[in-house]
Amino acid sequence: MSIAVIYGSTRLHGNTEQLTEYVIKGLEVEKIFLRDFLIQPIDDRRHTEGGFQPVDDDYSVLVERMMKHDTFIFATPIYWYSMSGTMKNFIDRWSHTMRDEKFPGFKKQLGTKKAYVVAVGGDNPYLKGLPLIQQFNYIFEFMGISFGGYVLGKAGRPGDISEDTAAISAAVNLMRK
Amino acid sequence: MSIAVIYGSTRLHGNTEQLTEYVIKGLEVEKIFLRDFLIQPIDDRRHTEGGFQPVDDDYSVLVERMMKHDTFIFATPIYWYSMSGTMKNFIDRWSHTMRDEKFPGFKKQLGTKKAYVVAVGGDNPYLKGLPLIQQFNYIFEFMGISFGGYVLGKAGRPGDISEDTAAISAAVNLMRK
Amino acid sequence: MSIAVIYGSTRLHGNTEQLTEYVIKGLEVEKIFLRDFLIQPIDDRRHTEGGFQPVDDDYSVLVERMMKHDTFIFATPIYWYSMSGTMKNFIDRWSHTMRDEKFPGFKKQLGTKKAYVVAVGGDNPYLKGLPLIQQFNYIFEFMGISFGGYVLGKAGRPGDISEDTAAISAAVNLMRK
Amino acid sequence: MSIAVIYGSTRLHGNTEQLTEYVIKGLEVEKIFLRDFLIQPIDDRRHTEGGFQPVDDDYSVLVERMMKHDTFIFATPIYWYSMSGTMKNFIDRWSHTMRDEKFPGFKKQLGTKKAYVVAVGGDNPYLKGLPLIQQFNYIFEFMGISFGGYVLGKAGRPGDISEDTAAISAAVNLMRK
Repeated sequence: MSIAVIYGSTRLHGNTEQLTEYVIKGLEVEKIFLRDFLIQPIDDRRHTEGGFQPVDDDYSVLVERMMKHDTFIFATPIYWYSMSGTMKNFIDRWSHTMRDEKFPGFKKQLGTKKAYVVAVGGDNPYLKGLPLIQQFNYIFEFMGISFGGYVLGKAGRPGDISEDTAAISAAVNLMRK
Repeated sequence: MSIAVIYGSTRLHGNTEQLTEYVIKGLEVEKIFLRDFLIQPIDDRRHTEGGFQPVDDDYSVLVERMMKHDTFIFATPIYWYSMSGTMKNFIDRWSHTMRDEKFPGFKKQLGTKKAYVVAVGGDNPYLKGLPLIQQFNYIFEFMGISFGGYVLGKAGRPGDISEDTAAISAAVNLMRK
Repeated sequence: MSIAVIYGSTRLHGNTEQLTEYVIKGLEVEKIFLRDFLIQPIDDRRHTEGGFQPVDDDYSVLVERMMKHDTFIFATPIYWYSMSGTMKNFIDRWSHTMRDEKFPGFKKQLGTKKAYVVAVGGDNPYLKGLPLIQQFNYIFEFMGISFGGYVLGKAGRPGDISEDTAAISAAVNLMRK
Repeated sequence: MSIAVIYGSTRLHGNTEQLTEYVIKGLEVEKIFLRDFLIQPIDDRRHTEGGFQPVDDDYSVLVERMMKHDTFIFATPIYWYSMSGTMKNFIDRWSHTMRDEKFPGFKKQLGTKKAYVVAVGGDNPYLKGLPLIQQFNYIFEFMGISFGGYVLGKAGRPGDISEDTAAISAAVNLMRK
């Protein structure tokens, strides 16, 4: 098992990162902090003459780093009841990559991967985070990615996650079941 | 009633725009195409010394345009089972605006608004678009925005929406009930 | 196309029935009013020695009537944000029928059917009825039933559905798209 | 804290019961096994002359037992992606009780209660059980019941729940957080 953690948060060492630490404790992982890179929104050219065009940003490098691994952890704060816009832009771009001759077999390769989700929010995440989980499930289903499981945690101010013992316990168990 | 339509799509005159035309036919609206503007992802500084900092992009102008109206229509293609990353970044930034002294009473003002959602997707949107609707519902609830209703349409290739007569009929009825 | 409508309501000529009339107008259907029959809750004996036992009620007759058709409409009031208990007991019993030698090939036959859902509720059904739609979707997926579509309507007091013109329009379109 | 556990399963000592044991270990509870009682489906007479009529079954006794406690645990197997029909019929009848002069202040009293949900299913309950959780959330919201939390467990054959260590861990933590 080789693991990439894709972080969607904008804060350094925030609650989402802290909760994810319990998931990956003792495991070797590659951490990809999306906030450190430039990711353009997708320009949907699926049906445009000439198709998608090369984009001058960091997206391709990030996808290449991710695809070297067989297991992904998507770790995102819950912003407005979904993943952060930064992470969403990253995933939106997959629509381009699926049609990019520089990434042949992108979808097929994803179909061999396994993914987990760690999401932390301040407003009743155990209930209001469920549409986000369902959304990830549809994303994974479409790509053929196996959905290994998820953890929802509750935290608002920095460090609050340390009080969500149920989430911490679930995080510790996430990849061990 | 004064209406702003906020478009999240990247394609010009795409299916989402076309379906929205049925909603707004005969009504005066201001159209805001997010794709034409630079919107940075939020830098979450709610808990950082100094708080949020001014951002050099077009976001503030867009919010000001939106807030002049009492009714919003969020029109987005369904990308990966939620709103586009572009629209998500726009909404993520509300967390800053809520704490921005240049926008006093932002949340309170939103609490007087009404909003509708128009969303078009290619992969079973009537079912797989439901988490998106639930996310919008939570967003509106948090802000006190009245959720007027939504329309889901099915379309993949350009113009396909014209075949979704049920969606068109629902679009025509959306603001008339 | 041969259609069975399975009604879960307890009231005669209630809002759910009225909305369903718009769906089936001009079509020949067999109407099955579950309220007129005795349907015992399932006694889950999947893992009990001897397995399921014959049950002395009307369930088998109702299933036989339903299975003569290739298209089903499940028409239920939204009681407590899901189908009525009467309809739930009817569907729960399918777990028995799948293992009943008197109904060989039950699941396989269902895999050739198409189903629609009509559901009417008084408390924001367009949003709070969505988990019910997702539940039906999982039920149909498990059985291989094709999910043709659904209509949600809003009504509380008798006859209120006549004011939900959007639902009526959707009902008229449901089986015509 | 005084606790009633309302069991919706039909099997004795099934997986749902077993998982619930981890929740209530060391706590004094009153166990209400709905399967041991006769509960008629509701006859919706909210809008009928004369209103609801007395029903000759065990429902009233069960509600009285439940209402003596301030905390409820609804423990149900996931049958067809929702609670069992037996439990659904029990809850459907609340619509009568809300209007029953023999239970004055029923809804108001419920507004002081706290409730938990334990649900066990065989078909991907962590995802396909989410609509059930959302449904319970709407039920509790309507009644003003505080939703304390939930546990989803995976099990098919008798005893399988013992292998779902994540669910067991969550069950142990459920009422302790």
